Amino acid sequence: MNNRHVESAARLRDQLANKIPLASAMQLSVESWDGRQLEIAAPLAPNRNDKQTAFGGSLYSLAVLSCWGLFTMRLWEEGLECEVVIQEASASYLLPVANDMVSRCVLADDELWRSTMTQLRRRGRARIALDAEIFAGAEPAFRLRGRFIAFLPGIPEKRSVR
Amino acid sequence: MNNRHVESAARLRDQLANKIPLASAMQLSVESWDGRQLEIAAPLAPNRNDKQTAFGGSLYSLAVLSCWGLFTMRLWEEGLECEVVIQEASASYLLPVANDMVSRCVLADDELWRSTMTQLRRRGRARIALDAEIFAGAEPAFRLRGRFIAFLPGIPEKRSVR
Repeated sequence: MNNRHVESAARLRDQLANKIPLASAMQLSVESWDGRQLEIAAPLAPNRNDKQTAFGGSLYSLAVLSCWGLFTMRLWEEGLECEVVIQEASASYLLPVANDMVSRCVLADDELWRSTMTQLRRRGRARIALDAEIFAGAEPAFRLRGRFIAFLPGIPEKRSVR
Repeated sequence: MNNRHVESAARLRDQLANKIPLASAMQLSVESWDGRQLEIAAPLAPNRNDKQTAFGGSLYSLAVLSCWGLFTMRLWEEGLECEVVIQEASASYLLPVANDMVSRCVLADDELWRSTMTQLRRRGRARIALDAEIFAGAEPAFRLRGRFIAFLPGIPEKRSVR
């Protein structure tokens, strides 16, 4: 990680630990961030269900936070302090997860990012679709596609939550 | 609630409090269950985000557990001990939630339930789609549609998680 990425990862860690009690209860840890790919991990124990596999709500929350974290950090690294909220998501449960888990969200498309920035500067807000994946060993076990919106400070009419 | 419903609600409370750590961290409480409609409540404080509104992962988890709880309790009340898991879900965030929240899941369609039971007895498993809704005051703030599957005990090939 270069210094800028180290700094935003530290800031994300702080937000997850101190601003979102459920993220803290899930014992999330930011594993890696290189400006394009974010990995957040969670141990199984606080995230298990009655079957001793990962609770569906934990898999979803972990994946959503990896997308939200990626979008938020990209904006920080553009010098922008936006409010980032989720609008909708679809989730697919493919395999049970019986171990600690890592969610990965990747934004490798520079063109997509440029058009998101253009939209944000022009309209004060921008939408983006992000995907996250959680593996059980080598196989994908959970997939999320989320639609997020970022608001520049001072933009009204935020009819959404994260 | 009649005795049967009181009994299954108590059993669901026990599962949420003792078998799913995240449900316990969310401080969920089973508010009402009449055999057709289940309401589960959650206080805002342990479920807030950095904006002091409900965290998207909490809204989703609360809604999923109200669907899962309804399906599980209906099965208990048929005398069936099934494993119930989620396969996929779609979530829509309509409004921020700045208060304690209640998720409601309703299964009023007797015909749908009869065909689910027929499927379960014939094939050893059955799928069902269930909807849950969370209100902010009088307006719907969050909607979930989840697809769940129940397995009779001893059925192999459970490639899904809850």
